[in-house]
Amino acid sequence: MERRDFLRKAGLAATGAVAAAAGLAGCGQEKKEEAKGPAVQPKKTYEWKMVTTWPPNLPVLQTGAERFAKRVGEATGGQLKIEVFAGGELVPPLGVFDAVSEGTVECGSGASYYWAGKVPAAQWFAAVPFGFNAQGINAWFYSGGGLQLWEEVYAPFNVIPRPQGNTGVQMGGWFRKDMNTIDDYKGLKMRIPGLGGKVISKAGGTVVLLPGGEIFTSLERGVIDATEWVGPMHDLRMGFYKAAKNYYYPGWHEPGTCLEVMFNKKAYESLPVELQQTVDAVAAETNMWSLCEFEAGNGAALQTLISEHNVNLVRFPDQLMEDLRKLATETLEEEANKDPMSRKVHDAFLKFKAQVGVWGSVSENAYYNVIADKYALKK
Amino acid sequence: MERRDFLRKAGLAATGAVAAAAGLAGCGQEKKEEAKGPAVQPKKTYEWKMVTTWPPNLPVLQTGAERFAKRVGEATGGQLKIEVFAGGELVPPLGVFDAVSEGTVECGSGASYYWAGKVPAAQWFAAVPFGFNAQGINAWFYSGGGLQLWEEVYAPFNVIPRPQGNTGVQMGGWFRKDMNTIDDYKGLKMRIPGLGGKVISKAGGTVVLLPGGEIFTSLERGVIDATEWVGPMHDLRMGFYKAAKNYYYPGWHEPGTCLEVMFNKKAYESLPVELQQTVDAVAAETNMWSLCEFEAGNGAALQTLISEHNVNLVRFPDQLMEDLRKLATETLEEEANKDPMSRKVHDAFLKFKAQVGVWGSVSENAYYNVIADKYALKK
Repeated sequence: MERRDFLRKAGLAATGAVAAAAGLAGCGQEKKEEAKGPAVQPKKTYEWKMVTTWPPNLPVLQTGAERFAKRVGEATGGQLKIEVFAGGELVPPLGVFDAVSEGTVECGSGASYYWAGKVPAAQWFAAVPFGFNAQGINAWFYSGGGLQLWEEVYAPFNVIPRPQGNTGVQMGGWFRKDMNTIDDYKGLKMRIPGLGGKVISKAGGTVVLLPGGEIFTSLERGVIDATEWVGPMHDLRMGFYKAAKNYYYPGWHEPGTCLEVMFNKKAYESLPVELQQTVDAVAAETNMWSLCEFEAGNGAALQTLISEHNVNLVRFPDQLMEDLRKLATETLEEEANKDPMSRKVHDAFLKFKAQVGVWGSVSENAYYNVIADKYALKK
Repeated sequence: MERRDFLRKAGLAATGAVAAAAGLAGCGQEKKEEAKGPAVQPKKTYEWKMVTTWPPNLPVLQTGAERFAKRVGEATGGQLKIEVFAGGELVPPLGVFDAVSEGTVECGSGASYYWAGKVPAAQWFAAVPFGFNAQGINAWFYSGGGLQLWEEVYAPFNVIPRPQGNTGVQMGGWFRKDMNTIDDYKGLKMRIPGLGGKVISKAGGTVVLLPGGEIFTSLERGVIDATEWVGPMHDLRMGFYKAAKNYYYPGWHEPGTCLEVMFNKKAYESLPVELQQTVDAVAAETNMWSLCEFEAGNGAALQTLISEHNVNLVRFPDQLMEDLRKLATETLEEEANKDPMSRKVHDAFLKFKAQVGVWGSVSENAYYNVIADKYALKK
């Protein structure tokens, strides 16, 4: 075998160390320098593909996946390079889990509730109506056993999950009419996927599923009466304020949606341990970063919506919220009864929610009520 | 020019690529082995010392610094090893900043308000009365320019800071008497350091500074009337419930204290770029982890304090909070006027606080008020 061929076949030809060695190797003077220390093989490099469920350039979601890949490259000195493909570029957005599971690609980015049809218990790791906010779900993952449970849920599919982002509390959505009582959901056609949609169905609404690109037109033409999306930063981009004036809060259906990065088990385990650890650290870093981006970006966007686009910001009435809460509790019980793993996850979820809820009621709740300054939005 | 000199002068001598060339070069037997693939020198390893301001084994604070060091070791495959020394083991707790600044050690862990005497503007990066909670200060650091400002403040001392932890909202403290109005602070002897202490002084209280080991006895004997510490998890360990029955919330003086890791600039910059990036990622990971540990641990500890130790959990009256807020605003203005950098930091702090405050009022505030379930503490 020619040396060059050997290098290529070993997948090493692209490393800087090899190029340097090939260029500099020779006889004579260099021999003296051998005494410097033992020689070792250059580190193996890895070139991975990541597929995502997000449209190209979608802020924080797609750009967060890209940031993760970039930071992994930086922190490994290029030893692990991840090329990112937005939804549809390599596989369809909802084909991400299967592509990672089957090893078509080494990793993917999305949100676990997209896989509910295949993996019912996955729903608890993204967003649960009246469930955790970002701080709660992160505490569950990192300090309450939640991540281990999530790993258990994905293990039969040879997929390893890591939290990689969080939207923070989302908005309740855009409504063409006023929402005063739970009865106002009767006959309401709303674009709202997942568990939130199941709650709205229970309330008598008609859930309409639409891809992102069709929502605005449907809302504008009255094909749907309402839609939820993410929060001010993303909703502003979609122009929903032109089609519906009532912007309700809070997003009870997605109070802190976790975004995920997931790895094909074989690919992840083929990495040297230090690369696995680096990947994990960068996932946590990206998780933190993305919440910060939402936190920083949403305030300015909300102000723009109100002062430039005359949006009517409305809080859901308390009784309507309590009625939705009851329907959400029923919905979650029904989902939990579908299989033993869902029951196990749901029970663990509720237990940890009580643990952080006790503390939240005297810490962050009091922070927002009596420590944080009150800022009025300018009309 | 000798080849060795050339390499050194070109600044390449330490790179893996050149080391690889040196190791490989040669004639005779070595030449045969060349076919195996190029050999390179093993990567340079680094052995660092970290000093902290914390007592040995202090949960999340000292153990968080140790976790940071351990994770850096794992993620670099042992290339960067950090040995951690608790407060007093190598340098006094409050000597950490100087030790890092002077390069006595490569890194340290503490909280920036400890350095207020030397670096007044540093106070804004740890905890500010009626300032950011964890989510707010992290958004400021990572997505609002706060970290760049912090770097600017530490730069004259050759120190590079990174957020490395957060306590979340702390508790208001332990009081032997009832606190009904701001006048109840008159003559009150309280252990409360930093900016919070300045506010209490303005309210007519006497601020007493005591090391951690002397607080309990002083409170029990009535040498002081009140003390703050951290939150339920840490306060339970200190046994304060045996010396004062009123446990007030919320911790207006430290609503989300940031813990720091800091690096001697020369040491940090001597690392290959990928190690710098790994260190940064692990710092962010540890920052996230520590908040999760507080979030998970405080609820259980609070319940124990109430049900097993009959602690009287009391919320500061609203008017007292408003009076403290006014004094805090005055205090911060006075501090900001002390030097131009403090003014610059304070103004940036206030600006970003308004930006996230607008959003917080419709997102997390509503989350805690109307989405999160209400959990009653059991007597």
